[in-house]
Amino acid sequence: MPQTLPDIQNTLDTRGVALEQVGVSDIKYPITVLDRAQGKQHTIASLAMSVSLPHQFKGTHMSRFIEVLSRYRDEFTIQTLPNVLDEMRTRLEAEAARIEVRFPYFVERSAPVSGMKALMDYQCTFIGDSSTDSDNFILGVTVPVASLCPCSKEISDYGAHNQRGDVAIQVRTTRDAAGESQLLWIEELIEIAENAASAPLYPLLKRPDERYVTMQAYENPAFVEDITRDVAVQLREDPRVEWFSVQVTNFESIHNHNAFASTSWHR
Amino acid sequence: MPQTLPDIQNTLDTRGVALEQVGVSDIKYPITVLDRAQGKQHTIASLAMSVSLPHQFKGTHMSRFIEVLSRYRDEFTIQTLPNVLDEMRTRLEAEAARIEVRFPYFVERSAPVSGMKALMDYQCTFIGDSSTDSDNFILGVTVPVASLCPCSKEISDYGAHNQRGDVAIQVRTTRDAAGESQLLWIEELIEIAENAASAPLYPLLKRPDERYVTMQAYENPAFVEDITRDVAVQLREDPRVEWFSVQVTNFESIHNHNAFASTSWHR
Amino acid sequence: MPQTLPDIQNTLDTRGVALEQVGVSDIKYPITVLDRAQGKQHTIASLAMSVSLPHQFKGTHMSRFIEVLSRYRDEFTIQTLPNVLDEMRTRLEAEAARIEVRFPYFVERSAPVSGMKALMDYQCTFIGDSSTDSDNFILGVTVPVASLCPCSKEISDYGAHNQRGDVAIQVRTTRDAAGESQLLWIEELIEIAENAASAPLYPLLKRPDERYVTMQAYENPAFVEDITRDVAVQLREDPRVEWFSVQVTNFESIHNHNAFASTSWHR
Amino acid sequence: MPQTLPDIQNTLDTRGVALEQVGVSDIKYPITVLDRAQGKQHTIASLAMSVSLPHQFKGTHMSRFIEVLSRYRDEFTIQTLPNVLDEMRTRLEAEAARIEVRFPYFVERSAPVSGMKALMDYQCTFIGDSSTDSDNFILGVTVPVASLCPCSKEISDYGAHNQRGDVAIQVRTTRDAAGESQLLWIEELIEIAENAASAPLYPLLKRPDERYVTMQAYENPAFVEDITRDVAVQLREDPRVEWFSVQVTNFESIHNHNAFASTSWHR
Repeated sequence: MPQTLPDIQNTLDTRGVALEQVGVSDIKYPITVLDRAQGKQHTIASLAMSVSLPHQFKGTHMSRFIEVLSRYRDEFTIQTLPNVLDEMRTRLEAEAARIEVRFPYFVERSAPVSGMKALMDYQCTFIGDSSTDSDNFILGVTVPVASLCPCSKEISDYGAHNQRGDVAIQVRTTRDAAGESQLLWIEELIEIAENAASAPLYPLLKRPDERYVTMQAYENPAFVEDITRDVAVQLREDPRVEWFSVQVTNFESIHNHNAFASTSWHR
Repeated sequence: MPQTLPDIQNTLDTRGVALEQVGVSDIKYPITVLDRAQGKQHTIASLAMSVSLPHQFKGTHMSRFIEVLSRYRDEFTIQTLPNVLDEMRTRLEAEAARIEVRFPYFVERSAPVSGMKALMDYQCTFIGDSSTDSDNFILGVTVPVASLCPCSKEISDYGAHNQRGDVAIQVRTTRDAAGESQLLWIEELIEIAENAASAPLYPLLKRPDERYVTMQAYENPAFVEDITRDVAVQLREDPRVEWFSVQVTNFESIHNHNAFASTSWHR
Repeated sequence: MPQTLPDIQNTLDTRGVALEQVGVSDIKYPITVLDRAQGKQHTIASLAMSVSLPHQFKGTHMSRFIEVLSRYRDEFTIQTLPNVLDEMRTRLEAEAARIEVRFPYFVERSAPVSGMKALMDYQCTFIGDSSTDSDNFILGVTVPVASLCPCSKEISDYGAHNQRGDVAIQVRTTRDAAGESQLLWIEELIEIAENAASAPLYPLLKRPDERYVTMQAYENPAFVEDITRDVAVQLREDPRVEWFSVQVTNFESIHNHNAFASTSWHR
Repeated sequence: MPQTLPDIQNTLDTRGVALEQVGVSDIKYPITVLDRAQGKQHTIASLAMSVSLPHQFKGTHMSRFIEVLSRYRDEFTIQTLPNVLDEMRTRLEAEAARIEVRFPYFVERSAPVSGMKALMDYQCTFIGDSSTDSDNFILGVTVPVASLCPCSKEISDYGAHNQRGDVAIQVRTTRDAAGESQLLWIEELIEIAENAASAPLYPLLKRPDERYVTMQAYENPAFVEDITRDVAVQLREDPRVEWFSVQVTNFESIHNHNAFASTSWHR
């Protein structure tokens, strides 16, 4: 091996095209996140990490992303993201850095009548953007729920079509006096989504529980439009919320396609 | 370029390992299939094509699969599969050949009350296996349906959870006097699946149609076990059916996981 | 059945939440698109169609999307999208309408030495947004290519790692004198992407062709950064291009994760 | 609520169709597996659990699967699978039970020259089948590797196309004197796959490492046929292996489709 290997990435580029993002994606990595009930939770993330690249530099040193990731995997939260992004900017000598972290998060749920417990999974995301003059953190949760069609209930002599759906919420919080993003628990967003739906989903239901949720859904019919609006109303009232987007998708049980509604808002 | 390029694939192999399949997969190609109502239907297939490789040969000439595919793409049916497989065996000098073809197939469906028409998609598969002493053809269709839970209906004062589900049927037919596989239409398997479900799905429903299918589903509760069995009973009675498998999967509207049942049978 | 069924969607809503999008998604439908070489091409689309919903209306009549789709499926192009969007706005009494159409598009490719022909697939998208005061059309193409790592080539005594990658381009064109979006062929974007990569991909290569593309890739090493920039340079020079984004992703052959780079630009 | 809810699943069925499998699928659950280096590893599984259902019973009590799963999630190994299956058969009063567990497994890998460490993910599966007279356990690992085409290297003046590929191995082991399945580590199957490929993949490579693996791949060209055979040769020589299947898939860097080869063997 030659004593020093050339560093092609470090050479000059003359095309005059700055790149918004250069990085690595579809990385799978075990990480630890905050858990409201248990303190910490082990999970497995799929990540994308990138930095900006000024027009005059040919390339980025991609291996450094993995070095940063390995160092921070023991605590990945909205609170530690600023540090991860800072280290990405320093190690990769970049003005801006971005990270997207997707992971399943488990919450122990009790069946509504029998009280039997089991774990249910929710897909979550952390997105962090950092540049010299600003940073930006978003928490996302997708909550599977049941929805029962108000039109079908109203026009039919009996029954009503219902189905599984997804409530995808993304939130950016306001800053506290110290300039830090306020904490919003994944569990809080799950509750907001379930409050807006016809009924929550559960991992484990015995017959009395099934009776309960069947009737709960029938008593709370909701279009995708209704669920989207009820989530929006709750989030607008929370002073910690600076911006949100919500998209509700129903896997219609009368069609082979989906119905969806979405909206966004900022304070 | 040298006048003759070496043919590495054609060299001898001494490891003594025969390969059951060597080929290409995840090929996307436009094909034409038989349509009961329209004569022909243009669709787009995802294919895997392979041949067996005796232990003494190092490799297969993969480009020949694409040459065969290009020649036959204008009519891909259970009837032409034997010719495709013959040509694969000849061109690739192989004892056995296999092809798997997956494609969406569209059927015009009329809403049950308004009669309004639109197209609905069904995922289909052709699988063909051919060797010196036998061949084997399988037709598969996955039919999305609605199912309404008999337990939920029975134990609740009103309502019943229901959801979208999939009925996946695979069939091998008996041979006619000339030794050819008997024809079974994709449309026939769709009807069998829908007969067994709580209600069919439709691409387009107006309010009177929605009322109709809501009440139809409520009147026909069915577990995944029931749908599987009702499909099995219908297929066993059809003299053209030599073997079948059926798997029904419900995207449960009370859970974030699925329920399924399966069985298979041969004459 | 009652003589008139209530129209729940048409009732008033008092929550004060306007919805940006309400519609249907994951619809599969056969459509016909323009083909530079053949005139027309049959393909199969996955679509999302939506309209805006003012805060005072409870719901949207989702079946009307399918009615519009059925009427226009015989010619879906950047040219007919304005009509589809107009009809969506009229039929659904909405201020704004949006459609996203994803479909595979096939182009006959000739191998570089043998000239042998076969079809290759490219994933394409049409996105159209229309409101009372503006409309907006985007054409997208994802072009699979080969990339060979300049660093690996430079630092190694022989060989260089290379891999399959994707060049995803989205373009909005300028308007002509009549105010219509200028035409840009899918085939033109494919050429731009392939020019920027180490080598094009082909559906069918014989040995002399494989020799050709192997050496072509070795002679044209390119990072994801380089490919992104070379696409950007070509698009900026085309007077028909008003805005573009490009993202290049490499399925690295030395890692189990991907490398990517992206940029965007507007005139 | 009525004092006792009817048990529909427990009623008699007269259609005469026994079901091979009835159960739940696509369940996400955190589990703990054995780790050769660390003792234990936290991961997240996707599971399917099912039992057979005799023809005379209408349905299965699906919630019991989740109860069994919750009890065993702290140690899921080939060694504890027999207990899980026993409990499924007992709790669900079934003759046969089946479980399929898919999960990512992480191994710390050291770069070949710099020695820098990071984690790499491998998709694994446990499959267990148990009935009154036999049981059957399969361990599966999919190992991403690099392959470099021997034909391309031979016919080209310089370079050679290479790409990421997958080596999917499934193994059933022989029993020891006590009748228990012999242990085979996931790490052992990873080594076998990497030995057969052109080069291993790594999560983190610095420039001297990249030089090393680039040249290693160039020195070890291998078709999918070669990799399949070299895996087969190694597995046949291991006395713990009773049966295996191996399928190698290359994400070709000169085509937009894949090449694959497969074989299976039993002692």
